[in-house]
Amino acid sequence: MLIFKEFNIRTPEREILIDISNEVSKIVRSANISNGICHIFIPHTTAGITINENADPSVTKDIITYLNKLIPQGGSLGYRFRHGEGNSDAHIKSSLVGTSLSIFIHEKRLMLGTWQGIYFSEFDGPRNRKVYVQIQGE
Amino acid sequence: MLIFKEFNIRTPEREILIDISNEVSKIVRSANISNGICHIFIPHTTAGITINENADPSVTKDIITYLNKLIPQGGSLGYRFRHGEGNSDAHIKSSLVGTSLSIFIHEKRLMLGTWQGIYFSEFDGPRNRKVYVQIQGE
Amino acid sequence: MLIFKEFNIRTPEREILIDISNEVSKIVRSANISNGICHIFIPHTTAGITINENADPSVTKDIITYLNKLIPQGGSLGYRFRHGEGNSDAHIKSSLVGTSLSIFIHEKRLMLGTWQGIYFSEFDGPRNRKVYVQIQGE
Repeated sequence: MLIFKEFNIRTPEREILIDISNEVSKIVRSANISNGICHIFIPHTTAGITINENADPSVTKDIITYLNKLIPQGGSLGYRFRHGEGNSDAHIKSSLVGTSLSIFIHEKRLMLGTWQGIYFSEFDGPRNRKVYVQIQGE
Repeated sequence: MLIFKEFNIRTPEREILIDISNEVSKIVRSANISNGICHIFIPHTTAGITINENADPSVTKDIITYLNKLIPQGGSLGYRFRHGEGNSDAHIKSSLVGTSLSIFIHEKRLMLGTWQGIYFSEFDGPRNRKVYVQIQGE
Repeated sequence: MLIFKEFNIRTPEREILIDISNEVSKIVRSANISNGICHIFIPHTTAGITINENADPSVTKDIITYLNKLIPQGGSLGYRFRHGEGNSDAHIKSSLVGTSLSIFIHEKRLMLGTWQGIYFSEFDGPRNRKVYVQIQGE
């Protein structure tokens, strides 16, 4: 069985990780699939998808802030970005964090680890964004 | 249904992102699958696969150049690479960018975002490279 | 057909890449699937999964050491991590390297490239860790 869903989110800041575990879990539950896989895809070039800790909000803050130190919006390390829109940092972060991810489904639930949440990774907000979800299984 | 294809590319420079969206799209069209998923895998350790903007060529230039500032071929940050082949930077970039990626298929077309292209990511060319594509669907 | 397995590993150091190709290959062989795909998922937030060279051990040493130069445990680039557990660097590395990966199966074998091995990526060990493997195919 194959189910496709998409949902929208509004990102409130330029750089932020937004926990979308509940939205994805709802889609998985309603898919009524016992065992299978949930693929997530982000159809944007200045955003990504990642999994990380959902207990202490300092973790996502540290990720976003440190990525920004490594790859600042205005460039660094003696290089000036050529792309005229002023968001080359976001494109680079998107390629490093990635835009696709797959999580297993067992008994209609995502098989996430104890501390894992699914995070939409915004690197050039605030924007209206889409998340694609595809579920395969039995 | 399960379809496997591979194709070859020749990368012309040491570090370059090469748009392979057309090659992958052709495979998807000929697979004649209405709804499903397209998995891409790169069987190399100094290259990767990523999705990013295909409108302004400055974007891929900025990605490649800035990755090279962060991880120069000769090392940096007080560390000299141990690996004798002079391409440890390429191995590191490969692990960060990644070697596998999955894109959904709807009505025989890849569900890419408006600005998204699929890029073979060469970090130690010029070389002859392979791209593996597997399509699953109905 | 859909098969799920998990296995445990004990990581001996804080930061190390551990070759789990044999463990994954065994699962693939015993699955008795001719053609399909092997998805790997790491249910941890301070570890990841990557593919890289398995010939010269200096490569994984260079990857781990250089990632640590870019993202040291104590922070760098003028930023002090907020997360109190002293492992924000590991969370960041986990999001960059990633926690899911997919490899094709042909004639009951993983379609890895000549020099490719599958590496559990420990960034905050030593710990007991789990690896999830799901195999789909015919």
